[in-house]
Amino acid sequence: MDYTFSKGMASLKPSVIREILKNSGNTIPLSAGNPAPDAFPVDDVRELAAKILADDPILALQYGVTEGYAPLIEELTKLAKERYGVGSGNDAVIVVSGAQQIMNLMSQVFINYGDTVITEEPAFIGALNCFRGFGAKLVGVPLEKDGMDTDILEEKLKTEKNARFIYTIPNFQNPGGITTSLEKRHKIYDIAKKYGVIILEDNPYGDLRVSGEDVPAIKSFDTDGIVVYSGSFSKIISPGIRVGFTVAPKEVIAKMTVAKQTQDVHTTMLSQLIVYNWLKDGKLAGHVEKIRAIYRRKLNLMCDMMDEYLLDYLDYHRPEGGLFVWAKLKDGINMLDFVRKASANGVSVVPGNAFLTDMSAPCDYIRLNFSTPSDEGIIEGIKLLAKTAQEMKGQ
Amino acid sequence: MDYTFSKGMASLKPSVIREILKNSGNTIPLSAGNPAPDAFPVDDVRELAAKILADDPILALQYGVTEGYAPLIEELTKLAKERYGVGSGNDAVIVVSGAQQIMNLMSQVFINYGDTVITEEPAFIGALNCFRGFGAKLVGVPLEKDGMDTDILEEKLKTEKNARFIYTIPNFQNPGGITTSLEKRHKIYDIAKKYGVIILEDNPYGDLRVSGEDVPAIKSFDTDGIVVYSGSFSKIISPGIRVGFTVAPKEVIAKMTVAKQTQDVHTTMLSQLIVYNWLKDGKLAGHVEKIRAIYRRKLNLMCDMMDEYLLDYLDYHRPEGGLFVWAKLKDGINMLDFVRKASANGVSVVPGNAFLTDMSAPCDYIRLNFSTPSDEGIIEGIKLLAKTAQEMKGQ
Repeated sequence: MDYTFSKGMASLKPSVIREILKNSGNTIPLSAGNPAPDAFPVDDVRELAAKILADDPILALQYGVTEGYAPLIEELTKLAKERYGVGSGNDAVIVVSGAQQIMNLMSQVFINYGDTVITEEPAFIGALNCFRGFGAKLVGVPLEKDGMDTDILEEKLKTEKNARFIYTIPNFQNPGGITTSLEKRHKIYDIAKKYGVIILEDNPYGDLRVSGEDVPAIKSFDTDGIVVYSGSFSKIISPGIRVGFTVAPKEVIAKMTVAKQTQDVHTTMLSQLIVYNWLKDGKLAGHVEKIRAIYRRKLNLMCDMMDEYLLDYLDYHRPEGGLFVWAKLKDGINMLDFVRKASANGVSVVPGNAFLTDMSAPCDYIRLNFSTPSDEGIIEGIKLLAKTAQEMKGQ
Repeated sequence: MDYTFSKGMASLKPSVIREILKNSGNTIPLSAGNPAPDAFPVDDVRELAAKILADDPILALQYGVTEGYAPLIEELTKLAKERYGVGSGNDAVIVVSGAQQIMNLMSQVFINYGDTVITEEPAFIGALNCFRGFGAKLVGVPLEKDGMDTDILEEKLKTEKNARFIYTIPNFQNPGGITTSLEKRHKIYDIAKKYGVIILEDNPYGDLRVSGEDVPAIKSFDTDGIVVYSGSFSKIISPGIRVGFTVAPKEVIAKMTVAKQTQDVHTTMLSQLIVYNWLKDGKLAGHVEKIRAIYRRKLNLMCDMMDEYLLDYLDYHRPEGGLFVWAKLKDGINMLDFVRKASANGVSVVPGNAFLTDMSAPCDYIRLNFSTPSDEGIIEGIKLLAKTAQEMKGQ
């Protein structure tokens, strides 16, 4: 049978990164985005799972409500306000099955086929693919050192009459590593307000700061009900448990809840109960300090190695946190050739075009990840990248 | 701010049932669809969770691949073939976050706004709402005692040029309680093939047969790659863990996998590992026998009570399994009044119009559930329904 797929999905391909990961076999994985295994609170999760399944197994195994386990929503509302400064009386909070689900709920709730979504350029591929799947026209706004180019953002909003929302990761952006300055956060907010467009503020890495000072969330100055804030426990507790949350205007939350009901009914109860008990036990702050130390070590190790071995071949900006380094290959090194040869040499990185709104556009960037490989893997991986660049220069 | 929602979602309301459940407070819940709490393999889950988090916690907490944990897919492929007779060399299997996700993936993959989905009438509200959310035009085919009216099915397919798939629950349909006969399963297959339309065969209740003989799945005679089979562990192990699976033609599975990647990346790893180990330990067959005994007792208790107390006020057909009884109120009893008065009397049932493609159409039916209430609740609930009907007749 010839299958006729929906217009949005017909041309959508699997994520380039996930395909690279599948095929990267024995290479050193500087291409992934997995949290470091030693960053998981394994003992906490083990103890809590045992306690939950001993004390109230039926609660963990029965259907839950779509919005999420009510006591967890209460904890998250408090956490969002106290730790991240987000959420007002006009907002509500729901639990989602990882922050990726927020991208999908936002798409289902707001995008008609052909509508525009404004994103940073480059941007997180999981979000781009999600918007593409709903038939969105992606319009990229170049990322500068302090966040997206707000002049271009305004230009785009002047012409894109069906822009539904602006997608941004203001802290340690994936893949750019950029943190948007407070000034630009205000500018983005003001422009969005002026043009009546929602902001989707995705903050999966906010707690992974290893240097510098925290910058207030855009959602923290949302007095107009235009910001949807997305939080995640994937990088703090575990991505395998699939728990995130969103803080958004009540009317938007109501619609997202209806969409979630048709998507997975509710988020896994055991996962929700683990997160609830972990937060209630006051584990977050101490654990974040612990994993920051891990990521500080790994980020600095990678960047120090890059400074020692790679500055002849690429330029990059040392990020203040997150999981990624975004690097621009210098003239004369073809990016796709470099990625291919690096893989043959035993180290995998992600070709930068994977993160562009138009993946066929020319691109000199690669994305490197320091959370997945071991420290030895980072050292060896950077050396192999240098070897690859050397070989290419020598040709 | 005035929010402009997508065309598909703009008019979609939360599931009537889930709203009733939220508001049913202290009434006896004949309105729900929860598995009986004593049907959960609590000890197995507790032991397996402990074992998994002791032996390989990182596997349970790290990201997984979108298709699902590979050894689980292998188990499911075997299970589907050996137990349900479904799956061929042209098919593939993926793990999903509960069978509801299959409805959503099918919608995203196949439905353009305005396309038609053919469903049984009445049909599962979670599926109807999902299709509505993607802007599908719902076309209902009346359910007869042996499955949908295949003459009307063919008529509809003659005129509905953009029909994308036929949605059916052939075993103990929700809400109708009907099991589609083998003859009609073949007819539905032949008609779908003739008109080049896919069948979405949803089988959440197949293992909950309490009398009569199993009927082969439609997917078991799919030599043309036109059937997507949906399986679920919600009624066998637990709905709270959110694990289902689908067996479908490889090309369809590939597209559903891309959609799932943008929806929740992958299904909760701990849930997948629990199901995997439980299946591998050979727990399924014995546990299904155990829960069949529970549901046989509860189904017969409810139907015996209905025979004793309610036959003056309604007609119904005793189902051979599943979780629901579908009953038609006799002349002179207004259905919505009855549901409202029953709730005031302390027992909740679902108004039948919730399951119609056009919820504003006249409807004399109610749906009763026997899995959620205790045995005492069933007895008391049916007596309260009789009291309600009596009061209405006496007016």
